[in-house]
Amino acid sequence: MRVGSASVTARLDLDLPVPDLTAAVCDIESVSGNEKVLADAIGRALTPYPHLEVTRRGNTVIARTDLGRAERTVIAGHIDTVPVAGNLPVRRAGPMLWGRGTVDMKGGVAVALRLAAHVVAPSRDVTYVWYDNEEVESAKNGLGRLARTEPELLAGDFAILMEPTAAVVEGGCNGTLRADVIVPGRAAHSARWWMGTNAIHAAGEVLDRLRRYQPADVDVDGLVYREGLSAVGIAGGIAGNVIPDRCVISVNYRFAPSRTEAEAQAHVRGVFDGFEVVLTDSAPGARPGLNHPAAAAFVLAVGGAPRAKQGWTDVARFSALGMPALNFGPGDPQLAHHDDEQVDVREIETCEQRMRDWLTAGG
Amino acid sequence: MRVGSASVTARLDLDLPVPDLTAAVCDIESVSGNEKVLADAIGRALTPYPHLEVTRRGNTVIARTDLGRAERTVIAGHIDTVPVAGNLPVRRAGPMLWGRGTVDMKGGVAVALRLAAHVVAPSRDVTYVWYDNEEVESAKNGLGRLARTEPELLAGDFAILMEPTAAVVEGGCNGTLRADVIVPGRAAHSARWWMGTNAIHAAGEVLDRLRRYQPADVDVDGLVYREGLSAVGIAGGIAGNVIPDRCVISVNYRFAPSRTEAEAQAHVRGVFDGFEVVLTDSAPGARPGLNHPAAAAFVLAVGGAPRAKQGWTDVARFSALGMPALNFGPGDPQLAHHDDEQVDVREIETCEQRMRDWLTAGG
Repeated sequence: MRVGSASVTARLDLDLPVPDLTAAVCDIESVSGNEKVLADAIGRALTPYPHLEVTRRGNTVIARTDLGRAERTVIAGHIDTVPVAGNLPVRRAGPMLWGRGTVDMKGGVAVALRLAAHVVAPSRDVTYVWYDNEEVESAKNGLGRLARTEPELLAGDFAILMEPTAAVVEGGCNGTLRADVIVPGRAAHSARWWMGTNAIHAAGEVLDRLRRYQPADVDVDGLVYREGLSAVGIAGGIAGNVIPDRCVISVNYRFAPSRTEAEAQAHVRGVFDGFEVVLTDSAPGARPGLNHPAAAAFVLAVGGAPRAKQGWTDVARFSALGMPALNFGPGDPQLAHHDDEQVDVREIETCEQRMRDWLTAGG
Repeated sequence: MRVGSASVTARLDLDLPVPDLTAAVCDIESVSGNEKVLADAIGRALTPYPHLEVTRRGNTVIARTDLGRAERTVIAGHIDTVPVAGNLPVRRAGPMLWGRGTVDMKGGVAVALRLAAHVVAPSRDVTYVWYDNEEVESAKNGLGRLARTEPELLAGDFAILMEPTAAVVEGGCNGTLRADVIVPGRAAHSARWWMGTNAIHAAGEVLDRLRRYQPADVDVDGLVYREGLSAVGIAGGIAGNVIPDRCVISVNYRFAPSRTEAEAQAHVRGVFDGFEVVLTDSAPGARPGLNHPAAAAFVLAVGGAPRAKQGWTDVARFSALGMPALNFGPGDPQLAHHDDEQVDVREIETCEQRMRDWLTAGG
């Protein structure tokens, strides 16, 4: 299906079984920045259901129940994908659904659509959020935009982000910090190298510290977060006959959600004590919050042993709003963004069934 | 003086004292690629002298005596400069002549012009060469072009390259070799860094070897050449959230003229044993050849203690043609290419006087 012009419309039938609905959502191409047609289709599909209040903000669609329940849960997922790689329309082969978005994360989008339409009287009120621009720079992120401008639309006691976790609860997420470690030198002609100070040679000390670094495994609320400190870039050198006067090592620190950003920054400065450290980027992690009653009830309902989420995800945006949040969705995260992205549709069915059971169980 | 259009002509008066002639040569701007006006002026100035046979090749001018002497000396210098930096026309302040080219190397150009014009019956035949494009990539070098296409024009027993040496004989030159040391890794998301192998961290071993490296001081024909092995560039990293799968360290080895290029290459491969080493550039050094009778006579005539030339110069092109060659010329080489390039004109006068004495002494 080729889309993209403003006049294109697409229809989603929420009565389809969830594998077929996933395929239909995937086939509405929605690479980041091009989510309009899919957002239109979602809004149009939800409007007929009288138990939902549907709101649109840009290419983000919000649907709320308002039954006066004691608790409110937010169920969120992004509707954009990374660029298509010849893997649309989707193909079905036995239980496998193959193509862009099948893992990251249109299975989760389809599950949330089915729950919104068909769980008419959930045991806790639900705010469903389908948002745009998750796969690109953070400033464009639809969930982040709502959190900044209308946080009341995201208010709740607990949030579920339907990123692919292979249908296992993954609690919270690590924080992430990027910094440049600057190593100075003094330029000279390389034929008279002893007149200068080689910044690249001096950077060896920075790499030595990185190699010696022992990352911590940190227990937070019963889940173990694996930290890491990695060089992600290095650059130095002016010309083939010049002793370099500067070498910059870019590092990425993934830190447990028990640390604040300030603590993480102090830690990195400590590791590279004696060198100039310039912070370039930082985002806090999210505690798993599984000891919160709503989260604990969810874990109990969906079963399995929760794991720590290592990568940063949008759960941190809920955490920053003071809500416990976890990741739970169909699909093997290792296949996200791959050209052979594919999902076992039985996993999507399982997710739908477990979340439906939880939403319809006595609150 | 503004030059550059094809119709511009300039005149050089070879009867001027050498400081004034140097100033006149400097004021004919001749940044690499723009040497035509100066080459024209040199050719025109030399043509009236019946003891000289003047030849032009591109913007290189050659003038030869042909007196049937037992020996032939080549006296060579480049006529181009690095770009002007607001330092033309030249200024005179006491004994200092200030401006682009005063050091590198229009003092030497002026000395050679004066010798060519006024030493009518030298004790050894002389081939003077004023060549273009020394300050840019080697493929354009006028002396290199002659050596490849008409080496007979450069034939001789001994060569003097009039690069700035502060009027001290600098013998031969080190060779130079560049290579890339490739460090492989395996990409992974930096949130799951343990799934990958960090090429930048692994490059620490390369930097450790560079820091541990003990460069040799090598005695060649009585002069000591200081070797060096330096990183001149480093690059690695794909994105801020990816464990890099490759890091490349560019190294420059400056090696004594007693080593061949093949030996130098084997040495570098040995230092980085276990890593892929890709040769990117190599040029042999030049032995000082001061034990050659013509060179020894020159050193005796000009006086002072000869030094080893550390940087690679065009003397290596003569060495490759089987001729001993040395560097000798006015100007402090540390000031070459600087915005405040300046020379003490007494040093230019000294060079002219000593070379004239040598050329007129009993052969």
